Amino acid sequence: MTECVFCDIVARRAPATIVHETDSVLAFLDIRPVTRGHTLVVPKVHSSGLESLDPAVGGEVFAAGQALAGAMRRSTLAADGVNLAMNDGRAAFQTVFHSHLHVVPRHHGDRIRFVAGMITRRQSEPEATARAIRAALDS
Amino acid sequence: MTECVFCDIVARRAPATIVHETDSVLAFLDIRPVTRGHTLVVPKVHSSGLESLDPAVGGEVFAAGQALAGAMRRSTLAADGVNLAMNDGRAAFQTVFHSHLHVVPRHHGDRIRFVAGMITRRQSEPEATARAIRAALDS
Ligand SMILES: [Zn+2]
Ligand SMILES: [Zn+2]
Repeated sequence: MTECVFCDIVARRAPATIVHETDSVLAFLDIRPVTRGHTLVVPKVHSSGLESLDPAVGGEVFAAGQALAGAMRRSTLAADGVNLAMNDGRAAFQTVFHSHLHVVPRHHGDRIRFVAGMITRRQSEPEATARAIRAALDS
Repeated sequence: MTECVFCDIVARRAPATIVHETDSVLAFLDIRPVTRGHTLVVPKVHSSGLESLDPAVGGEVFAAGQALAGAMRRSTLAADGVNLAMNDGRAAFQTVFHSHLHVVPRHHGDRIRFVAGMITRRQSEPEATARAIRAALDS
């Protein structure tokens, strides 16, 4: 194990529920989801923040987030909306210092308060959740 | 004026404090900033949400956000961190239905609570703010 848990996940040295993968990015479920299906997209090459993130890879991170957002709407999660968020720097509530994009499926009336004081829940059925998203992503 | 205020801003039919522009995206200050320098990046071609946003243009929106984030740190705003956020759909708190990326400069201890129940302030010195960011963007 290295000192970066997301690098460990990318290298498959640490467990994670993978949702999507390309040559340059990996998407997996957040272990402390704000809502069911809350996914993180990370560049495979370590960068602690936006400043050191290759802009081309940044674009691919966003593209993956956009694709995931569509998948979350089309999937059985049936998201009514999606928040994409990247918190860059401790002052912006970044907690893991390997850049990551949050992709958070939303439903009407879910009253989620996030970013500040992230209200997190335990995962429920992560595999089924990941499968539902992957299926919609491929469709 | 059309029915979309962001299209009007792109066409310069409505006023805005422009921060950055490329062939495909325009960035301007949010008129209801969460923090000083709060900027919106929009695709020039209208799309109500992520679903209809050309992924290539989405990548450019994100790239602009990344560049702006660096600029906000290097500028006299001296941001300690930056939040990038795109709210897609009413359930995700989208209020203007022309896709836009929020780029929100942050400072240690600013205790901002945003996304849910956006705490907004009046603009103070928008031109100076925009100028500071532009200067750092070009450097
Ligand atoms: Zn890492
Ligand atoms: Zn528009």
